[in-house]
Amino acid sequence: MSGNTRIAVAIHIMTSLACAGESMTSAELAKSINTNAVVVRRLLCLLAKAGLIECTAGKSGGSVLSRKAENISLADIYNAIAPEESLFAIPEKSANRSCAVSCKMKGLLTKVFGQAEDAVRNQLENVRLSDLAKNIS
Amino acid sequence: MSGNTRIAVAIHIMTSLACAGESMTSAELAKSINTNAVVVRRLLCLLAKAGLIECTAGKSGGSVLSRKAENISLADIYNAIAPEESLFAIPEKSANRSCAVSCKMKGLLTKVFGQAEDAVRNQLENVRLSDLAKNIS
Repeated sequence: MSGNTRIAVAIHIMTSLACAGESMTSAELAKSINTNAVVVRRLLCLLAKAGLIECTAGKSGGSVLSRKAENISLADIYNAIAPEESLFAIPEKSANRSCAVSCKMKGLLTKVFGQAEDAVRNQLENVRLSDLAKNIS
Repeated sequence: MSGNTRIAVAIHIMTSLACAGESMTSAELAKSINTNAVVVRRLLCLLAKAGLIECTAGKSGGSVLSRKAENISLADIYNAIAPEESLFAIPEKSANRSCAVSCKMKGLLTKVFGQAEDAVRNQLENVRLSDLAKNIS
């Protein structure tokens, strides 16, 4: 499967923190996800920047949720990651000025993809982090 | 912007064909999109496989819409491309068997992402190829 795995990893991180109920290090999270701690730390920075987690540096440091899992939706997690990782990308190549379709395409796609991303956000808003955590036995 | 540009390019191809109202070659389409004809031909194959266009080989060949633009939705185009390019990918790495979150994550993400992709399909179903084409002057 191709595509963007960062949202999946971010949701995994947040579910791990919700289930742990205590601080976890990036190494512990990386072990659960079976990925590199560098990947985890980069996502932790985005999640902290969005106010979803609090990170403490140092040897005894780690990350915790900044509010209850009931009060965090998957849309919150998506929004924390999405600015760096759009679902639909528009090619960056310049338009062919002699082609009417080419000249209008970027504007049309921006509108259509914006509506599609809003639909994703609305759907993910309905799922709470606690909904995922309660499925973990 | 990172991410998947193939859906954008496929929509551009289909809008070009809708506006042209006649057969276009992959070279002509590539010129409008400002991309490589190989990229275009790969997408044309998927669009033809989905029954949205008809392609004729040979020197005088090219591609045409197989039905009216009013009867093609952006969801039809998305569905033609999406099997090869999921919006949300789940990491292919195996789960950490000693971690309950890790063991359950793939199943939970598959459900959540499936619902999000359905939301995208429903949104794109509301937009007809003719809606885009009529914006091209």
